[in-house]
Amino acid sequence: MSAKYTIGLDFGTLSGRAVLVSAEDGRELGYKEYVYPHGVMDRTLPDGRPLKPDSALQHPQDYLDVPEKTIPALLAECGVDKEAVIGIGIDFTACTVMPVYADGTPLCMTDAYRGEPNAYVKLWKHHAAQEYADRINATAEARGEAWLKRYGGKTSCEWAFAKLLETYVEAPDVYRAADLCLEAGDWMVMQLCGKLRRSACMAGYKALWSREEGYPSRAFFEAVAEGFGGAAEEKLRGEVVAAGAPCGYLTKEAAARIGLTEKTAVSAAVIDAHAAVPSLGGDCEGKMLMILGTSTCHISLSKSLAYAEGICGVVRDGVMPGYYAYEAGQACVGDCFSWFMHNCVPESVSEAARERGMNLHRYLRSLAEKKRPGEGRLIALDWWNGNRSVLSDTTLSGMIIGLNLNTRPEDLYRALIEATAYGTRKIVENYEQNGIPVREVYATGGIADKDPFTMQIYADVLNRPIRIAGASNGPALGSAIFASAAAGRAAGGYDDPFEASRAMGKLRDTVYSPISENVEAYRLLYAEYERLHDYFGRGGNEVMKRLRAF
Amino acid sequence: MSAKYTIGLDFGTLSGRAVLVSAEDGRELGYKEYVYPHGVMDRTLPDGRPLKPDSALQHPQDYLDVPEKTIPALLAECGVDKEAVIGIGIDFTACTVMPVYADGTPLCMTDAYRGEPNAYVKLWKHHAAQEYADRINATAEARGEAWLKRYGGKTSCEWAFAKLLETYVEAPDVYRAADLCLEAGDWMVMQLCGKLRRSACMAGYKALWSREEGYPSRAFFEAVAEGFGGAAEEKLRGEVVAAGAPCGYLTKEAAARIGLTEKTAVSAAVIDAHAAVPSLGGDCEGKMLMILGTSTCHISLSKSLAYAEGICGVVRDGVMPGYYAYEAGQACVGDCFSWFMHNCVPESVSEAARERGMNLHRYLRSLAEKKRPGEGRLIALDWWNGNRSVLSDTTLSGMIIGLNLNTRPEDLYRALIEATAYGTRKIVENYEQNGIPVREVYATGGIADKDPFTMQIYADVLNRPIRIAGASNGPALGSAIFASAAAGRAAGGYDDPFEASRAMGKLRDTVYSPISENVEAYRLLYAEYERLHDYFGRGGNEVMKRLRAF
Repeated sequence: MSAKYTIGLDFGTLSGRAVLVSAEDGRELGYKEYVYPHGVMDRTLPDGRPLKPDSALQHPQDYLDVPEKTIPALLAECGVDKEAVIGIGIDFTACTVMPVYADGTPLCMTDAYRGEPNAYVKLWKHHAAQEYADRINATAEARGEAWLKRYGGKTSCEWAFAKLLETYVEAPDVYRAADLCLEAGDWMVMQLCGKLRRSACMAGYKALWSREEGYPSRAFFEAVAEGFGGAAEEKLRGEVVAAGAPCGYLTKEAAARIGLTEKTAVSAAVIDAHAAVPSLGGDCEGKMLMILGTSTCHISLSKSLAYAEGICGVVRDGVMPGYYAYEAGQACVGDCFSWFMHNCVPESVSEAARERGMNLHRYLRSLAEKKRPGEGRLIALDWWNGNRSVLSDTTLSGMIIGLNLNTRPEDLYRALIEATAYGTRKIVENYEQNGIPVREVYATGGIADKDPFTMQIYADVLNRPIRIAGASNGPALGSAIFASAAAGRAAGGYDDPFEASRAMGKLRDTVYSPISENVEAYRLLYAEYERLHDYFGRGGNEVMKRLRAF
Repeated sequence: MSAKYTIGLDFGTLSGRAVLVSAEDGRELGYKEYVYPHGVMDRTLPDGRPLKPDSALQHPQDYLDVPEKTIPALLAECGVDKEAVIGIGIDFTACTVMPVYADGTPLCMTDAYRGEPNAYVKLWKHHAAQEYADRINATAEARGEAWLKRYGGKTSCEWAFAKLLETYVEAPDVYRAADLCLEAGDWMVMQLCGKLRRSACMAGYKALWSREEGYPSRAFFEAVAEGFGGAAEEKLRGEVVAAGAPCGYLTKEAAARIGLTEKTAVSAAVIDAHAAVPSLGGDCEGKMLMILGTSTCHISLSKSLAYAEGICGVVRDGVMPGYYAYEAGQACVGDCFSWFMHNCVPESVSEAARERGMNLHRYLRSLAEKKRPGEGRLIALDWWNGNRSVLSDTTLSGMIIGLNLNTRPEDLYRALIEATAYGTRKIVENYEQNGIPVREVYATGGIADKDPFTMQIYADVLNRPIRIAGASNGPALGSAIFASAAAGRAAGGYDDPFEASRAMGKLRDTVYSPISENVEAYRLLYAEYERLHDYFGRGGNEVMKRLRAF
């Protein structure tokens, strides 16, 4: 059989990317990006209408244009015939939701609702629905809703029902007019193959759904707000399929528009971070992937179900079929380092870095790595943006202790890196203490790729080897892997995503192995971190909450 | 009677200053400075011999030259006849001690001991005697020495007996050869008037002496080190007089050398910080003076004796005759702000300050003062250099809590300023809770003179008005006031230092008055500070100690 290819479509916050990979071994042939013309709308609608604070909207036309603007050019550039492309897979930011009519037309693309903010896509980081999340949480807690424990006891303002309730309360006509509320990823699948298939990944992590229990009950939603009882049954109806499951084939119209054939399989959408998991290859049980970026997401797979404090969610079929996928997170990692770079690095250090032609991160690391663990005598709590796991408390804040007249910028920088590593160790220990195995640790994202100093600290703090994802765009490769499985063996793909992942997934050669003397030092320092974590995080002293409320 | 004048000689760490003032009203006529040619010797002796780490030595010839190099020129410049100068007073850094022969000749100025570090002046910040201070503390505690409570339960490595014990152990021949161990201030008095008079201020704060009980016993010193029993009785013998008390008149030789007459009265030495107290004028009972510099010293006066946790010392006659003078301190104030300026101010802020032609402190204050108390949502513990009062613990370290992605450099800067103000409030409350009245608060030093933003924060945090010393050099004016009292009314001076202080002391017109809404905010923030202070400072979590020992 001639060489076959699949395409991973990776929809980010500011652009969409198409990656063409070999279905045989996952090799990347080429890559194209399309930047959304509307970008993130956080101040006004396209017609100039001002938005509420904390809004973050997008325009679905931008998504629709991504495959059209990227795929034909990509195939031409790589010299690949459209007949050789057997599948297309999608990963998307989430929860990124929009109201649509039954045929998939977004309300914001009709004249009637063009001027209505709630008719647009609410991007994952649309934070204007906090009060609605509060109401959902309070009602769930008051009613003792069992599903709450799957989410570590709390739901987020970023999730689907908070955003939908915002629409219900603030734009009741939009709510009424909308036949469905769809994740943008599921909407793209519908645009490509003409079928409504909801991703278990998105429904599970962002819309309180589970394979066994479905959505929360009508009674619950009615208790949240009178008349909101049908929120799930009506607005979120549609078959829920495993992340990356086969959904069908490109419609004639879609195939023509994006330059592919009607024989191209389409797989169900996956949340972007989660789509990186199959890109690693190998087995699933006890695998943990850290996606290290501005924040960090930790995804772990296991055949068995367990509940742990402060996890962001557990979803069966959420990443790989038949596996429970657990998600935990740190709200502030790269963001914390950036904050430090912008606010705390003295001119003398900036100048020294320039003189050496080094970027500031690299120069500071070159100073920090000359010191031994603990030599800076600092401990920080990494809560600059609250704590997502395991405390699930956005009102917490950062702390540094041990400051003295010899404390240098590189000591502070290193302490922040170490603090994020301690935060990860806390998450790993929390997983394990609750029966979620963590046998192997993997990392991906900018920090994993470019920062050996930080990765070594993580290996030393965790006292585990850390392997690094091999793809330059893990989510896109993961999507292409799902697409290969959706296409099936007969078409040149695979029988299932496990087989596809083993064949197409890849790791770097680099392994960060713990260094025993560092492990011992960090064991002691982590004990201090834990003591401070519990004191400030579990009610010993609620000063952080009080300062925040000040 | 024609106009009379007195001279205050103020001996600092790097130079000595002579100030000529009117005995009538304390007006300053002129000022001359002489920089010590030997400076601080912290690496080698003049002959190149290397010194132990943490050494800080000086050469007494530098002190001797100060009056000669400054006074004649000062009189000439001001057009004041030497007959009109009725007194000379001295303030000096302390504990700054040297071994001398009975005639006052320093051992280091003899051929036999020129090459011996222990024969030189050990400057106040000579920190090489820590192990000897530890031995003194351990012995005192083991024996339950009653005098220990006058010093808040601990003595310092900067004090006289630690420095003398260092000599006893490390240079026994110097110890044996020395007839006396003298504070440099007392030595200058001896050089000028030919009499050995020890200042109660120096003996009391730095050599464990009290008016009622004298020095610790021979048995105690013998227990500290065999053969060291005579440390006080032999090496520190000499009459102890009240700070600033009349000691006699210039010797013929001294008068000739420094261009004054033999009718010039000489007053007893005073520690430089303490000498600022009479420069304020007014009454003594319940007065507290803060000397705000790299560190802060708090001196309070009261007729009654009390003991408070963590005070640095209480000395009757230590500042004004008949009054108990209490001293407390913060080890790191201006030093902490300087640390911040050198290590934590980003290039963008440095550039913005330059563009505006402002120094960095001023520019940051201009940003910080736009915010309300608590708006930065930060609390710091001001222990970058340990805590001197009330915890007396050098192993403590600094802490900042409340950090978040919106924290800006000016928020951090303000939090550090506020932390030092909270530290002062803790000291004031500790004084008052232990029966040491604080009725009026005064401030002097660079921060008090030049930084209204910081002083307003202090007034708001303390919820008390703060008045600012009026003299440009408070210690020198204080010394000149003591000199006027030593000269006596008949010579054109005063009957006692109280009268002299009322006539010659001065305040600025500026009064920093608490602003009630800030007071309320700081009441809440201080409650947080106190909780953290006690948790980290009193054993709730000894993480600071453990980090330091790491």
